[in-house]
Amino acid sequence: MKIAIAGSGAMGCVYGHMLKQGGNEVVLLDGWAEHVQTINAQGLQVGEVGVVKVTDIPAYAPADYNEQVDLVVLFTKSLALEAMLEQIRHIIGEHTQVLCLLNGLGHAYTVAKYVQPSNILMGVTVLTAALLGPGRVEFTSYGKTEIQNMADEPEAQARAQAVVQMFNDCGLPTEYATDIKYAIWRKACVNGAMNSLCTILDANMAMIGYYTQAYDLLYAVIHEFSLVAKAFDGVEFDAHEFTEMVLKFTSPSFSGSVHYPSMHQDLIKNHRLTEVDFLNGYVARRGKELGIPTPYNELITHLVHAKEYVLGVRK
Amino acid sequence: MKIAIAGSGAMGCVYGHMLKQGGNEVVLLDGWAEHVQTINAQGLQVGEVGVVKVTDIPAYAPADYNEQVDLVVLFTKSLALEAMLEQIRHIIGEHTQVLCLLNGLGHAYTVAKYVQPSNILMGVTVLTAALLGPGRVEFTSYGKTEIQNMADEPEAQARAQAVVQMFNDCGLPTEYATDIKYAIWRKACVNGAMNSLCTILDANMAMIGYYTQAYDLLYAVIHEFSLVAKAFDGVEFDAHEFTEMVLKFTSPSFSGSVHYPSMHQDLIKNHRLTEVDFLNGYVARRGKELGIPTPYNELITHLVHAKEYVLGVRK
Repeated sequence: MKIAIAGSGAMGCVYGHMLKQGGNEVVLLDGWAEHVQTINAQGLQVGEVGVVKVTDIPAYAPADYNEQVDLVVLFTKSLALEAMLEQIRHIIGEHTQVLCLLNGLGHAYTVAKYVQPSNILMGVTVLTAALLGPGRVEFTSYGKTEIQNMADEPEAQARAQAVVQMFNDCGLPTEYATDIKYAIWRKACVNGAMNSLCTILDANMAMIGYYTQAYDLLYAVIHEFSLVAKAFDGVEFDAHEFTEMVLKFTSPSFSGSVHYPSMHQDLIKNHRLTEVDFLNGYVARRGKELGIPTPYNELITHLVHAKEYVLGVRK
Repeated sequence: MKIAIAGSGAMGCVYGHMLKQGGNEVVLLDGWAEHVQTINAQGLQVGEVGVVKVTDIPAYAPADYNEQVDLVVLFTKSLALEAMLEQIRHIIGEHTQVLCLLNGLGHAYTVAKYVQPSNILMGVTVLTAALLGPGRVEFTSYGKTEIQNMADEPEAQARAQAVVQMFNDCGLPTEYATDIKYAIWRKACVNGAMNSLCTILDANMAMIGYYTQAYDLLYAVIHEFSLVAKAFDGVEFDAHEFTEMVLKFTSPSFSGSVHYPSMHQDLIKNHRLTEVDFLNGYVARRGKELGIPTPYNELITHLVHAKEYVLGVRK
C-alpha cells in the first residue's frame, strides 16, 4: 500500500516506521522543516528498548507532496488537524482511505468535511512514543490499535478489515472495533481526567492518587463525559466503572504512573497550546448545546486555558 | 483597655503595635516559640515605609497567659481558631469582648461556642502586613477595619462603637459596620476567587487578568457564593457587581496586582495548609446542606486539596 503519515511527530513516526518495515511504501508529512530535513538526510531513527533502527522513509512538508495515496494516517495534534487536511486534500483520491488516530473528541466531523464517509476510518491507540529530537523518536510503550469504518456499508467494513490485517502483518497489534465511538470516549475519559488534572496541578498520575478524594474528583469529571457521550453520540458507559479504570493509572503499582501526560508536557514543560478543547472543552461545548450542565468540565477548560495565558502561551 | 492579641502573626503584630502605641495594655499570644522569645528579648520590630519602630510588648504562648482581659482580638489562621479559643478560654471573662478579624467564612459560629453573643464582635480588615521573621513584621498596605457587634442589644452596640472609637484613636481607621455579614461575604468573594485561583494556577493576580475569559471564570465562582450567602446568611449581593470588583484586583493599573495572595504564599511558597475550607469549601459544604449546586466551588476545593497532597503538605 502507498501510505502517507499526515502529522509525523512521535506517534506518526513509529507507525510510519512499522508500516514501512512491513513492506509498504510510506511517506512522512510534517510541518517541522528541521525534522523533515533530518529524516531525508540521515533516515528516521527509531529507538526500541535500547536498540536504535534507522529507516529510510522520505519526508515532506505536507504541501510539498503531490501523489495520491491508498491510505492517509492522520496523526497531527488536535489543533492542527484541519490545517493538515487543507494542505493534503490533493493526495486524497476517490479510493483513498483516511484513518484518524488522533486523541480527543469530535475529529470524525472534521475529517468528514474533507473525506467521504465510506473512506473514513476512526481509530484509537494506546501505544505511546516520544520525540527525542529532529529525526529521532522512540517507542515508550506498546499497545493495541483499534480501527473501525465510519460508514455502515459492507464494503467499507471489508476495506477497514483489510487495513486491520495489514497493520497486524506489520507488527502493530490491531483489532477491528465493533464500537469505535465507545473506545474513543473511553480514551477521552482517561485523557480528560488525567491529562487535564495533571496539567492544572503540575503533577504526574501517581500524585493525583495521593489525594484521598481522587475518586470523587475523577468521577465528577467522567460523569459529565458519560452524560454527553450518551446524549450526543449514543455511547453508553458506566461512569463509576470508567472512574475505577482511570484511577488505576494513578496506582504506584502501575509503572507508568510516574509519567507526566502529554498535555502536561505540552503546556508545563514545553509551553505549547493544549488539546483541552477536544477533551473537557468539547464535553462542555456539546453539553451547552444539549442543555446538559457540565460545570466541572467548564471549569477545567477555563483553568487550562487560564494557565496557557499565565504562561504566555496564549496572549 | 487590657487587650490580648490571640494569634500574633503579621496582622496580629501590627494591630498589637498600633493598639499599644495608642496607650492600651497589650499582650501578644502566639504558638511560635521563637517569635515569642524574640519579641520578649528584643521588642517587636514593626516596619512602616522604611522606618522600623521597636515596641515593647510582652508575648506569651497562649496557654501561658492567665489574666482576664477587656478585649481579645482573634487573628489566627482559620484552621487554628478553635484550638486558640480552647487555649485562651480562661482569659475570657463575663465582660470580655472578643473581636474576630480572621479571613474566611463561618468563624462567628466557632467563636459562639466559647463566647456569649453579646460579647462577640465580628470584623473585616483590608490592611495587609507581612511577617519578616521572628519578632519582625511590616505594614504592606493600609486600609479600613470594619467592626460590628453580633447581638442586637443596644448595649452590645454601644460597646462595639466604643471599640471602634478606641481603634480610631490608636490610628487604625475603623468604621462601625451596619452589615458586617455583607462585608465578610464581600471579602470572602475576593479571597475565594483570587486566593484559590492564584494558588491553583501558580499565578499572581495580574496573571489571572491575562485570561480573556477571566470574567466568566470569576463570575461562575462568585455566583455560587451569592446563592449560598443569600440562602444561608440572608446576605444579598449582585454577583456581577462583585465580579467587576474582584476583576479590578487583576488590573495592571492596580499596583497590588503583582502580589501573590496569602493562600499561594501558604501552599505554593511555604508548603503550608490552606484556608480553602473556609472559603470555597465552606460555600460547597453549605450549598450541599441547602441543596444548592456549587460545582465550581466543589471542584476548586478538590483542586486545592489535591495540590496539598501533591506537594506532600497533607499525606
